[in-house]
Amino acid sequence: MISAIPQSDHALEETPLQRYESIVKGGRLVIPFLGELRGDLGIREGRIVAIAEEIPASAGESVIDARGMMVFPGAVDSHYHVGIYRPHSEDAESESRSSLVGGVTALISYFRTGQNYLGTTGPYREIFPRVLALSDGHFYTDYAYHLAIMDSVQLDEIEMLVDDFGIASFKFYMFYKGLNLASDSTAGSAYTMAENYDLGHLYRMMERITAIAAQRRTAGRISLSLHCENPEIIRVFIEEVKRHGPGGLAGYSRSRPPLSERLSIHEAGVLADATGCPLNLLHLSSREALQAAMEIRTRYPQLDIVCETTLHHLALTCDTAGGIKGKVNPPLRTRADAEFLWQGIHSGRVDTVASDHACCQELDKDEDDLWRSLPGFGGSALLYPVLLSEGWHKRGIPPVRLAELAAANPARHFGLYPRKGTIAIGADADLALVDPGKTQRVHAAALHSAQEYSPFEGMELTGWPVATILRGQVQYKDGEVVGGKIGRYLKRPLPGE
Amino acid sequence: MISAIPQSDHALEETPLQRYESIVKGGRLVIPFLGELRGDLGIREGRIVAIAEEIPASAGESVIDARGMMVFPGAVDSHYHVGIYRPHSEDAESESRSSLVGGVTALISYFRTGQNYLGTTGPYREIFPRVLALSDGHFYTDYAYHLAIMDSVQLDEIEMLVDDFGIASFKFYMFYKGLNLASDSTAGSAYTMAENYDLGHLYRMMERITAIAAQRRTAGRISLSLHCENPEIIRVFIEEVKRHGPGGLAGYSRSRPPLSERLSIHEAGVLADATGCPLNLLHLSSREALQAAMEIRTRYPQLDIVCETTLHHLALTCDTAGGIKGKVNPPLRTRADAEFLWQGIHSGRVDTVASDHACCQELDKDEDDLWRSLPGFGGSALLYPVLLSEGWHKRGIPPVRLAELAAANPARHFGLYPRKGTIAIGADADLALVDPGKTQRVHAAALHSAQEYSPFEGMELTGWPVATILRGQVQYKDGEVVGGKIGRYLKRPLPGE
Amino acid sequence: MISAIPQSDHALEETPLQRYESIVKGGRLVIPFLGELRGDLGIREGRIVAIAEEIPASAGESVIDARGMMVFPGAVDSHYHVGIYRPHSEDAESESRSSLVGGVTALISYFRTGQNYLGTTGPYREIFPRVLALSDGHFYTDYAYHLAIMDSVQLDEIEMLVDDFGIASFKFYMFYKGLNLASDSTAGSAYTMAENYDLGHLYRMMERITAIAAQRRTAGRISLSLHCENPEIIRVFIEEVKRHGPGGLAGYSRSRPPLSERLSIHEAGVLADATGCPLNLLHLSSREALQAAMEIRTRYPQLDIVCETTLHHLALTCDTAGGIKGKVNPPLRTRADAEFLWQGIHSGRVDTVASDHACCQELDKDEDDLWRSLPGFGGSALLYPVLLSEGWHKRGIPPVRLAELAAANPARHFGLYPRKGTIAIGADADLALVDPGKTQRVHAAALHSAQEYSPFEGMELTGWPVATILRGQVQYKDGEVVGGKIGRYLKRPLPGE
Amino acid sequence: MISAIPQSDHALEETPLQRYESIVKGGRLVIPFLGELRGDLGIREGRIVAIAEEIPASAGESVIDARGMMVFPGAVDSHYHVGIYRPHSEDAESESRSSLVGGVTALISYFRTGQNYLGTTGPYREIFPRVLALSDGHFYTDYAYHLAIMDSVQLDEIEMLVDDFGIASFKFYMFYKGLNLASDSTAGSAYTMAENYDLGHLYRMMERITAIAAQRRTAGRISLSLHCENPEIIRVFIEEVKRHGPGGLAGYSRSRPPLSERLSIHEAGVLADATGCPLNLLHLSSREALQAAMEIRTRYPQLDIVCETTLHHLALTCDTAGGIKGKVNPPLRTRADAEFLWQGIHSGRVDTVASDHACCQELDKDEDDLWRSLPGFGGSALLYPVLLSEGWHKRGIPPVRLAELAAANPARHFGLYPRKGTIAIGADADLALVDPGKTQRVHAAALHSAQEYSPFEGMELTGWPVATILRGQVQYKDGEVVGGKIGRYLKRPLPGE
Repeated sequence: MISAIPQSDHALEETPLQRYESIVKGGRLVIPFLGELRGDLGIREGRIVAIAEEIPASAGESVIDARGMMVFPGAVDSHYHVGIYRPHSEDAESESRSSLVGGVTALISYFRTGQNYLGTTGPYREIFPRVLALSDGHFYTDYAYHLAIMDSVQLDEIEMLVDDFGIASFKFYMFYKGLNLASDSTAGSAYTMAENYDLGHLYRMMERITAIAAQRRTAGRISLSLHCENPEIIRVFIEEVKRHGPGGLAGYSRSRPPLSERLSIHEAGVLADATGCPLNLLHLSSREALQAAMEIRTRYPQLDIVCETTLHHLALTCDTAGGIKGKVNPPLRTRADAEFLWQGIHSGRVDTVASDHACCQELDKDEDDLWRSLPGFGGSALLYPVLLSEGWHKRGIPPVRLAELAAANPARHFGLYPRKGTIAIGADADLALVDPGKTQRVHAAALHSAQEYSPFEGMELTGWPVATILRGQVQYKDGEVVGGKIGRYLKRPLPGE
Repeated sequence: MISAIPQSDHALEETPLQRYESIVKGGRLVIPFLGELRGDLGIREGRIVAIAEEIPASAGESVIDARGMMVFPGAVDSHYHVGIYRPHSEDAESESRSSLVGGVTALISYFRTGQNYLGTTGPYREIFPRVLALSDGHFYTDYAYHLAIMDSVQLDEIEMLVDDFGIASFKFYMFYKGLNLASDSTAGSAYTMAENYDLGHLYRMMERITAIAAQRRTAGRISLSLHCENPEIIRVFIEEVKRHGPGGLAGYSRSRPPLSERLSIHEAGVLADATGCPLNLLHLSSREALQAAMEIRTRYPQLDIVCETTLHHLALTCDTAGGIKGKVNPPLRTRADAEFLWQGIHSGRVDTVASDHACCQELDKDEDDLWRSLPGFGGSALLYPVLLSEGWHKRGIPPVRLAELAAANPARHFGLYPRKGTIAIGADADLALVDPGKTQRVHAAALHSAQEYSPFEGMELTGWPVATILRGQVQYKDGEVVGGKIGRYLKRPLPGE
Repeated sequence: MISAIPQSDHALEETPLQRYESIVKGGRLVIPFLGELRGDLGIREGRIVAIAEEIPASAGESVIDARGMMVFPGAVDSHYHVGIYRPHSEDAESESRSSLVGGVTALISYFRTGQNYLGTTGPYREIFPRVLALSDGHFYTDYAYHLAIMDSVQLDEIEMLVDDFGIASFKFYMFYKGLNLASDSTAGSAYTMAENYDLGHLYRMMERITAIAAQRRTAGRISLSLHCENPEIIRVFIEEVKRHGPGGLAGYSRSRPPLSERLSIHEAGVLADATGCPLNLLHLSSREALQAAMEIRTRYPQLDIVCETTLHHLALTCDTAGGIKGKVNPPLRTRADAEFLWQGIHSGRVDTVASDHACCQELDKDEDDLWRSLPGFGGSALLYPVLLSEGWHKRGIPPVRLAELAAANPARHFGLYPRKGTIAIGADADLALVDPGKTQRVHAAALHSAQEYSPFEGMELTGWPVATILRGQVQYKDGEVVGGKIGRYLKRPLPGE
Repeated sequence: MISAIPQSDHALEETPLQRYESIVKGGRLVIPFLGELRGDLGIREGRIVAIAEEIPASAGESVIDARGMMVFPGAVDSHYHVGIYRPHSEDAESESRSSLVGGVTALISYFRTGQNYLGTTGPYREIFPRVLALSDGHFYTDYAYHLAIMDSVQLDEIEMLVDDFGIASFKFYMFYKGLNLASDSTAGSAYTMAENYDLGHLYRMMERITAIAAQRRTAGRISLSLHCENPEIIRVFIEEVKRHGPGGLAGYSRSRPPLSERLSIHEAGVLADATGCPLNLLHLSSREALQAAMEIRTRYPQLDIVCETTLHHLALTCDTAGGIKGKVNPPLRTRADAEFLWQGIHSGRVDTVASDHACCQELDKDEDDLWRSLPGFGGSALLYPVLLSEGWHKRGIPPVRLAELAAANPARHFGLYPRKGTIAIGADADLALVDPGKTQRVHAAALHSAQEYSPFEGMELTGWPVATILRGQVQYKDGEVVGGKIGRYLKRPLPGE
């Protein structure tokens, strides 16, 4: 025996033989930034405590047989809207349940005051504890919240939210300045229940976030997420589309054109450069949007800019989403736009892929009235299936890169890494066991969501989770939800060990 | 017990209790792209086969006590010059031995035909087997070679070198067109023993490498390393310095000014854009050089450009390197240049740090004749100590980032990852156990090199390897080389598992 | 005699000896894009009909003795606000009279509906004839109008305005979206008397102008002028300044910071790139504003972008303008900003210099209430004196370049060239005879304006017009207005001959 | 009578009635930066002394009837090679005679030491007086010289050449480093008769020119012209073309590919940025070349960069030039390249158009040996005809813009303006009277050159000079050379008046 530390005067104490609560055995591990490799995992108290080429089955109280499976880190679905159109607790239950189907084990949901959600306004000191109370005991996955800062009272709460509630990411919706969510009213402030929700407010938010990010430098990244669509441009395009068409989703895309994204991104870039604020550019939907994001990255190379796209902007177009139910902000675009986004994934320009999941039931979608229909729909249940089928099988993007997009990067950029988003000792045993060859058509019924339909309906996908494991507990298996509402609130930064 | 694969009809076979040839116990693991965490490593047949929070000491035939230590992946010193000034085998022995002191477990050495090295020219089909023969059994670390393609015969050998010899990286020296190595002759072709070693030759090399990289896409990165200094600019600055001074290293820096780097980088950028060739910009020494590298990255965003700097350009200046012994190409610069390079590390613009180790004995350095003195010196023995002391302790760069610069990134970009450069199951058990608080002055004698002096002499550094482990074998321990010449040639791409 | 045209079968007819209504004799001509040269001018019917080294005095009915004088083309003051705060006809009389003092012979005034000016709204088909009627017979200089398009009715009038009224330039005020003129109300639409005066409206305006410019390609440049300040940013800075100061003009500059210009310019750049619209970026006041203008020029090299700055942003700062009377939009800045603008002139980045003349009497400036005070003041009377004194004598900018900035370029970019803005045969005999060595302090009384004060008061300037000539008529001479209200409306494009 | 200068105590003296040696009557003047207008010119002592709407025919000793004609300023052909392949005086006579056909009244010829030209080397102090002596009395047009600085002795002569000989522009040939003129030898230094003719030499030249330009700021522009082709790239492409074809001019274009221009331009840009040197990028031949020029303009916005293209790169392609006689450096390219150059003229990116006239007789062109054939041919006789026919009639570029490209801009950038290159009083009476509707096919015989053929042979052009006038003397008329060898050497900067 070698002792590399001569100065140590204590002998190494013998530790007892290691036993595990469960073992994941025989699978092919997909480890972000490392690659794929054969290995077994030993799990204790919900954490991965051993990664080894072989762990004897006998060392575990239970064994999960992963032979033939790829073992991904549980996805971190970092763009989500729990409770936007339905009662919060109820939505949390049905939708986090649905997320398990997609291999998701943690989600980060956006919350704001104003219309929809709780339909209220006021300081987060009062409201956010209500959100946490409505959440507690209702999630099948772990969860965190990004908070939108809607008024100047909330502006003064940013520091408190970081320190007391572990909020590490905030949000600004660039189009609420002059448009409501459904795009059928320009009375933005009636919708936000806030005055002065404009670029000036955004500037102040950036200043605050930058200052706090600087003070809490060791506490991980603190950032601002942006929904980049400019409502003033949208206003005139809606007028045009209402007058001259086209109808349907093509009209909706035309009414909120890529130019509105591009303009917003340039506006945001100027303000971020002036303040230094770290940004997350959400759900980039079009060639123009991703190009604009690249332009501000090139122009302001010192800025920290994370680029997100969504499952539906990658996999759907305004022609394939089955009509007005596919209404979403920003809209579904063309096949060429989607391919440009895939290229962005290929070349490393896109950092994260999320679902932007918003359960929107049929009664809120009126096939006869594009404008009144509420935007958004669910997709979290398809996170790994769509990425693996469309990304890996069809376009050759390696599985490890997809695990980075869906798990490791969202975790890194939102203060959860490496406890979430990867496979490592010390990390939570959040895993998606994927059968890489399993082929299945999308049927809404199999997604376990409260949403009765899916814009992805009928799409044939290859590569489905057959088990989803949260902190060592099998929550979903062979198409059935087998676990319980054990999800925990994730106060950020999540301690690494 | 859960079986996640209903279709499997074979029960999991029980594997026997795992035992390890050795265990690294009690240390703090520094895992690239993941972070620092407590963990033990189980090693078998030279590979890491288990990473666990606890591995019982009794499970190992031997135990390496790493309590209080940081366990880094062994550094991959990707810029090295074995045999440049001394007999190849002899140099391999003394210098790879020295590298162990710096925590290096694999090195990638440049080789070329022409003056120095073997002093010969001809096809690599004949010469490279000689190099391998002279290497075999003479290395304390694992090793690979980058090959410089000096003439049109060798141009036609690139594909063969990739396929038969596992060469994944090539080199072009932009200044040999019109200058020898020591800068005391402009008879470039006498030095290279090759005609037409110019930008046209570079263009042809880029074309070939790009074509082969495209065909062998799944075989990992194939790239071209560039020594970026323009000899035509150097010519006129040498004339000026010889006439008007200054003397010493300040004069040497003036004689090969940052402008010569900048010009070469722009030349290379145009040709890389025209061909698509992946580049490694070696030993960027100055603000101007790093800025030029960033300019071509911004201008040609589709290009794959890796930026390297060296230990000595980070830690030394022309004022601190102890006189003409500090002569090196490109020259040591000013404190401001060095700080700009550290900034580049901080902001993620620099990808790798290497030593550019070239053992150059005192007889080849003439303190009275700057121009006749040979350039280069050793530094591999200080790779982790300088990075940890100057980077982490002084400038706050996290250890995990330093492990990425010195180990994971060189391994990734040169076809060795994840077998080398990280800590993972399946990876080679190449480790540097570092005592983070150990403070020691640099003394040449302690570096175990054939070079009698060090330009770093007297520098007080905190954070030294106390043990260096190659494929599970302790090669260096407590200041002594305890292992043998077990280094293996690394044919690339190195298989992952 | 040589006949160069063999095919001509008509002999050249003899023309009678040329006689001129007046002759400008003995002066040094300053001819844009040519230089300075000695020459006499022969004038007939208000046009220059001869330029010659010598024209005998006897050939003219009258002779203007210009010995010792520089003969500039009459300035074309392309940024003006006739009637903004005072009855239109009255203001036209007093202020165009004042312009003569500065060597101005043509002015292009901005007009819009909404508060101030005529305080009315409606279609230009009805309103613009009223403006023309109020103008007719009230100008001492020739005049044209840029029109601001405030609502969708007016949007549909653009083509008619181009064709029927010779309007070749339009305007958008980027800050009226959420701010009134004085900055004491955010009720933008109450001020503009228009709904939806936003970036969407701007986009539509750009589309229309671009389409018409394309159709009327031979009819000269048709363009859009932009007042670039973003009201949303201003809103939060006003709040801050009201709360924390500073007071006075420094506070005013802080309340409408350069960032608000920069943001607007980037917004405009994106929309201009999307539409192809030719732009005039008005009264760039700060380093940040001019830099942003250069950025969009570089980013969108195909765009036609004209950059304007003003006399006061060049010559005054918030410290030198004598208190709140110096309130203007965008605000006066620092000495460093002014020097950056001079640099922009030096390097050719600034295309035009105008006065942004808005006669604002003392009763509208309340030294005790920054916010209630109306912005703007007169400066047209100092156009050549400030440029010659500060530009030529102090900073070495050649007189010919100043003539380009103040006369030829405004004329070229706004459809008046070469009838206005230069000295050429066929051009209107609009001239400013300048005594280059005449030194005089600015006194409001000598400026012949209705404005009782001047922010330039007391500034010692060298280089004053001693005579201003409009279409051959001496309108101003030796400090006195000697001509009449003979100014004509300039329907654009003004025919060249 | 008005006296604008009260302080003047001298009455204006009466000047006698103006009489002119000649009058140009009835034409349409094309005045750079002004436009087209009807006007007569009065000429005395070789200068234009009057421009007037009407000058009575009786006022002139002779009258040139320009009715129906456009009166252009005489072209300033700023890229010329007098004496390159033939005895200097002889070549000057035949070729300047030929230039008259194209409306050229001044030419600026390149001269260098080394092979061709006088075939000698040495200091310009000795050689340039010989050049002037060989020139004196042999030119039909006025003339100046750009001088190439070939070695370090000549480097030290730059200041002397500026001051004593009025040389305001120098030259560097980027490809002579490793290639002779005909491209049939890489022995560059045998051809240049100079050592070290490389980028280091270029850097030194730029330093010198920049320093002198700064000292002589009021003396007009002092600049460096660059032939931008990189010989190292050319070397490998020649090898390829010799091995694999194609033959003919397509092969020649391939052998000196646009990449060689692009690389040189980027090299030059870096060095110009480092020194501040004003550049003229000569004979840009391809899309890639012009794009590279735009890139360095954008990257280094402070630099003074003039872009030239040639008649033949605009009007000919490697398919249309009639075989190997069309060999020229850089080579003729494709139709698409030519159209890109025309676009560059349209958008204002190209500043000057010249002929690069080099009389190369048939014996020096070997239709059977591309490589041995000498490059270059004459085109000066077609300067206005090609521009007017291909530029104006075919592509709608206004005549005034063509006059700027062929006359005013070359004069401005090379120190001759406004004495040459425009129509103004005080300017030399250098004029081209053009019949805009005259259509004629190109026949070598009609070009009055010593070159027996023309690559433009057979091209139908509309818009030919019918008279060319130098300092008031009709030199060429109705297809015949009617004047004498009265051309004068133009010492620069040419005084304005």
